[in-house]
Order: sequence, then C-alpha cells, then structure tokens
Amino acid sequence: MRMIKKSVLFLCTIALLSACTQKNTSEVTRDKKQTDAVTSTIANQSGDYRMLFIDGKYRTSSTRGYTLELATVENISAFEIGLMNLSKSEFNPSQFYFIEGQFITNEEINHWLAVKSQENPNGLNSKQENNMLISTILEQDYMILNNGNYEFSGVSIGLALNPKTTASATLTDEELLAKGKEIVNQLLPLLRAKEGFDSIPIMFGLFKQSVDNGLSHGTYFATATSNSGTSVSKWSNTKLQKRVFPLETDKTEESSVFIAFKRNVEKFFPNLNGIVGNATFTDGAMSELDIKITTQFYGQAEMIAFEQFLVEQAGMTYSASELSVKIRVETVRGTELVVYKRAGENTYHSIVLN
Amino acid sequence: MRMIKKSVLFLCTIALLSACTQKNTSEVTRDKKQTDAVTSTIANQSGDYRMLFIDGKYRTSSTRGYTLELATVENISAFEIGLMNLSKSEFNPSQFYFIEGQFITNEEINHWLAVKSQENPNGLNSKQENNMLISTILEQDYMILNNGNYEFSGVSIGLALNPKTTASATLTDEELLAKGKEIVNQLLPLLRAKEGFDSIPIMFGLFKQSVDNGLSHGTYFATATSNSGTSVSKWSNTKLQKRVFPLETDKTEESSVFIAFKRNVEKFFPNLNGIVGNATFTDGAMSELDIKITTQFYGQAEMIAFEQFLVEQAGMTYSASELSVKIRVETVRGTELVVYKRAGENTYHSIVLN
Repeated sequence: MRMIKKSVLFLCTIALLSACTQKNTSEVTRDKKQTDAVTSTIANQSGDYRMLFIDGKYRTSSTRGYTLELATVENISAFEIGLMNLSKSEFNPSQFYFIEGQFITNEEINHWLAVKSQENPNGLNSKQENNMLISTILEQDYMILNNGNYEFSGVSIGLALNPKTTASATLTDEELLAKGKEIVNQLLPLLRAKEGFDSIPIMFGLFKQSVDNGLSHGTYFATATSNSGTSVSKWSNTKLQKRVFPLETDKTEESSVFIAFKRNVEKFFPNLNGIVGNATFTDGAMSELDIKITTQFYGQAEMIAFEQFLVEQAGMTYSASELSVKIRVETVRGTELVVYKRAGENTYHSIVLN
Repeated sequence: MRMIKKSVLFLCTIALLSACTQKNTSEVTRDKKQTDAVTSTIANQSGDYRMLFIDGKYRTSSTRGYTLELATVENISAFEIGLMNLSKSEFNPSQFYFIEGQFITNEEINHWLAVKSQENPNGLNSKQENNMLISTILEQDYMILNNGNYEFSGVSIGLALNPKTTASATLTDEELLAKGKEIVNQLLPLLRAKEGFDSIPIMFGLFKQSVDNGLSHGTYFATATSNSGTSVSKWSNTKLQKRVFPLETDKTEESSVFIAFKRNVEKFFPNLNGIVGNATFTDGAMSELDIKITTQFYGQAEMIAFEQFLVEQAGMTYSASELSVKIRVETVRGTELVVYKRAGENTYHSIVLN
C-alpha cells in the first residue's frame, strides 16, 4: 500500500482538470493502478499553494492525528499555516503544488517523538525533561508538475518545541534555538535515508509553542534548508511576532492607530461589544491583522451600512499594499459580515452573510 | 426634536466625507444646528444603497424595536432586506441614499397596528381576528442629494401580514392580497397627511409571514407605488419564492443540479456533516442561493484546498451572471470559509477566516 501511494505521488501521468470534464483518469506508470491526481484550475490570485487532489479526494496526512498535540487550538493553526507560509520562500507557489505529508509513517513519528534510549536510538526527546521538548513533527510535501507527472520535489518539516520543559524552568530563546539545531542534525540523516528524500531540498522550521492558555499564538522563530547532505549549518531567524490590540501596555504607533480605528468604529456604531485585533509582525513590520468585532445588532440595513463604513475606515487606516487584513463582525448568530484585503491588494472586499 | 431631525433630513448642507478629513461639519439651513450628514465614499459595486450617516452615527429607526414582532428571525431579515431590494426598482440605488425610517412615530404605529374602534379610528386591524392580520409596519426612507442637500424623496412601506388569523383558518393568497389592498388604501391617506409625505412616491410591499417555525422565510408577494394622491390601484405580483435544497419532494432541475453539486463536494471532502441550500426565485428563476456546509475539519491546509475546490465547483455549477451565491463552511469554531459571487459578477471571491 505504501508503494502504491508513493508511486502515485512520485510519478503519475496526469491531465489537468478541465472546465468540461470534472476528472481525468490517468495511468500510474509503476503499478498500472488507475488513479486521478488533479488540482484546481482556478488562477491562484491569493499567493496560496495549489492543492493536489488524489484519487478524486483531498488527501490528509496519515500521521496528522497522531502528532498534533499542541497546547492550544491557536498553536495548531499557527504551526500549520506558518510552515506553509515559510515554505513559500523555498518552494515558489507558482511552481510547486502542495500536499499534506504522505511519507513519514506513524511508526517513524512515534519513535522520533519518544525518548532516546538503547531500544529507541532514533528518539529525539531526552529523558532529562518532564515535558517533552518536541511535541510534534509536521510534514508538508511540495510537488512539481513535470511532463504531466507530479514529482515529489521538496519537503518542509515543522518542529514544535515546548520551551517549558519542567514545571519551574522555561528555556530562553537562545537555548531553544541551540536545542532545535541539535535535533535537526539528528533528524536530517533519518529523513535522507527515506526513499524519495535523498536528493530533494528539506526545509526545517522551529516553532515555539505559546505555553500560556491566552489568546496568543505560537510562532516560528528559525528556519534552515538542507539542499543535500545530512547536516545544516545556515539558519535564518524568522522574526515573527504576534501582538494583540488594544493592550494597555503597548505604547507603539501600531497600537495608537488601532485604538483610533476602534474609536471611530465605536462612534459610528454605538452598540458594539468589543473590538480586538490580532497582529502578526514579520521582521518588525505588521504583515497581518485580524480584527474581530462583536456586536448585538440585528438590522439588515444596519449591517450594510456597517459594511460600507468598515470598507472605508479600513481603506483609510490600513491601506499598505503588503498588509493582509481580515475584519469579522460577529453576533450571537455567528459571523455576519467580513471585510478583507489580501497582501498585494489595494482595495477591500466585503460580504454580508446573514 | 422632531423638527430638528426633519430639518436635518429634508434639507441639510452637506459635504461628502473625504479621504483626508474623516468628517465635515455642515450647517443646517433651517435651525442652524451644527450637524454632519455623510455617506460612504466607497464605490457601490454591489448594487446596495449608500447609507446615510447623520451626526456622525448610523441612525436606526426609532419605531423599529416597537414594531418588529414577527414569527421568526428568518422573517425579520427577509422582511427588511426584501423591502430594500423591491425598492431598487422604484428608487435607483445610483441616485437614492438609504436611511432607516425616521418619520413615522411610535404613537402612529401603535394606533395603526391596534384594532379599529371609535376611539382608534385609524386602526388597521379588525377585531374579528384572533391573531392580528398586520403584525408590523416597516418604513424605509430614500433621499436624493441635490445641490449639497439630502432631500427626502421616496419612502417604502412594508406590511407584514399573518395569513393565520385564527387558530383553525389560514387565508388564501387571494384573500391576503385583497385584505392587503384594503389596508393600503386606508393607510395611504394617513401617510399623505404627514409633513414631507404629501408629494413623494410611496411604495408598498405586502409581505406574507411564514407561520411555521421551520427554515423557510416569509416573502413579499405584491407591490404597488403611489406617485401622488390617496389611493393605489395598480399592483404587481412580486413572484418571489423560497426553496430549500435538497428536499426529497423537489423534482425540479434546480434540485437535481444542487444534489449533483452536493455529491461532488462530498466526494472530495468526506468529513462533511451537511450541505443545505436556501434558494430565492424571482419570477420563476433562481436569483439567490445561500449554501451552508457544516464540517468537522481542523486543518488549515485542508481549508485552503476546500476553498480552491469550492471556487471551481461553484464556478462550473452556478455561473449565471445574474445569480447571487454565498457558500459558507461552518465548524464548531464558527464560519471558517466563505465563497461568494454577487449578482452581475462572473467570477467567485473567497476568504478563509480562521
């Protein structure tokens, strides 16, 4: 079964989905099994990866359920989407297709995440710690379409590290980075030994979990790529930062701008229950802002007025082309209104939902 | 106070919101009170009305809370947004601005909705009925910008009728229409007697409440406009119909198309808990389709794959330019993904929210 799956992925004859035929039957060269591997034909405006669909279905990673044991839901999405975003600098989305990790097995993951011992020489955690330093390993596979075949051409590995290894001690960022580097140099030879992994670029992302149970997300703090061989030495800091607005202790310009935006919105729509912003900073500059507005209104006309107002206010306040913005208006009925702009866009879109 | 409010609305000197100054102080000609009446400067791509903001705030109708007593939440939004949509054929959104009803007072509404008697000669309900025939009267005001003044230039009146006037009997559509016409001819002279209402077009919409507590919305079934005078005779049927997909008893082409769409989605994403479509038909043709997909997945990559898949499937299945489509993917965390197209658009937009 593993061989079949690999053959589908490594080398399969494939025709792209056309608007007329919803799927194509294509022949796999190694084992002659009939299969479909298709992607969406929709132009990729958002900068996201095109997703590969195999056998007419979206294929999830088989190890995913086993390994995603992070402290909070916020950590999970930041861990997954963060690795995909980091991968874009190694594996260009206009060239590479994405598929969730297919090749690392549950058995391998279990051995790697367990404590190193004589019986388990490949364990990456050590028994000195109360909490495991490595909580999770995430695999993302990147494929290239070459003469009608999707070829496995790059892989990203996310390592979620828990800085709070004992109840009393928390590792510093330097200590965490040093430990992460060690782990990657233990893991890389194990990966290189796997079929298909021997000669492709392997990107590693080190993720620091948020250990409190608050609103904050964990973040990636360092990446490195091995193009070949069994050790990496060149690391980059990702300098990702997450901040929540408004926060009384935050006296930065970004915080003032958010507070002014919040006041303007509250002045026009007096029934609001709360406005909170979740910002992501890349290399010190705000790259993403997610705003959630909670309100109690029920009028449809009022929601359209709010839509027009928010599109205008956001356009005046958050106009930087490289900034991605999402504003959600929520009531007890759920999400009522979304106003958004992707990175690279200059105008806002909006949709009233109810 | 009522005079001040009217003077603001009937005739106020106003400068439009510019991108640099967030509001303008403008002088009201009648009472010299400083005020602001501004609208959004954002281009109106969606065909919605521009909303008028007065004194720096969105102004709700003062009678709204008193009068909106409909059977279900679904009825309320259909009643309100429905009247706004019907108004577009009388009051062109490129020319008219919208404001929630400002001129009918609570006192008037209370008298009109009460049973007609010697003490209450203007009551529109009669005492033969157990349930009131008229549940609610909704006012929407339409303004024109003329030489810097917003002038009150049109009004729409929605009348929500309850076909189930006694526990045992339900009025037929013909009976409901006849009763509605009678009521409009009683109400129109009362409206014409009000200041500002004497010489403007007044549109009436007759709304049939849905009396079951199911998923269905009530709908408008007839409209008429009085350009002048105190009676209307020319009525149009609105022929609005609401349908829910999939429904086993529905053997129409629209139903088959929906079922095929549902199957395609379920094939690609096997973890879905349900796909339901709410369709609106105008004069027999589907004009609006709201699809809700409930699922349990948690992966960010999977959500992006689902986004790409839905944009493509919707584009192939529901491509008619005049059709407005909203597809929402919901999990326990709320709305995760929205794929949509407005009427008049040929391509789909999409946004992943979490």
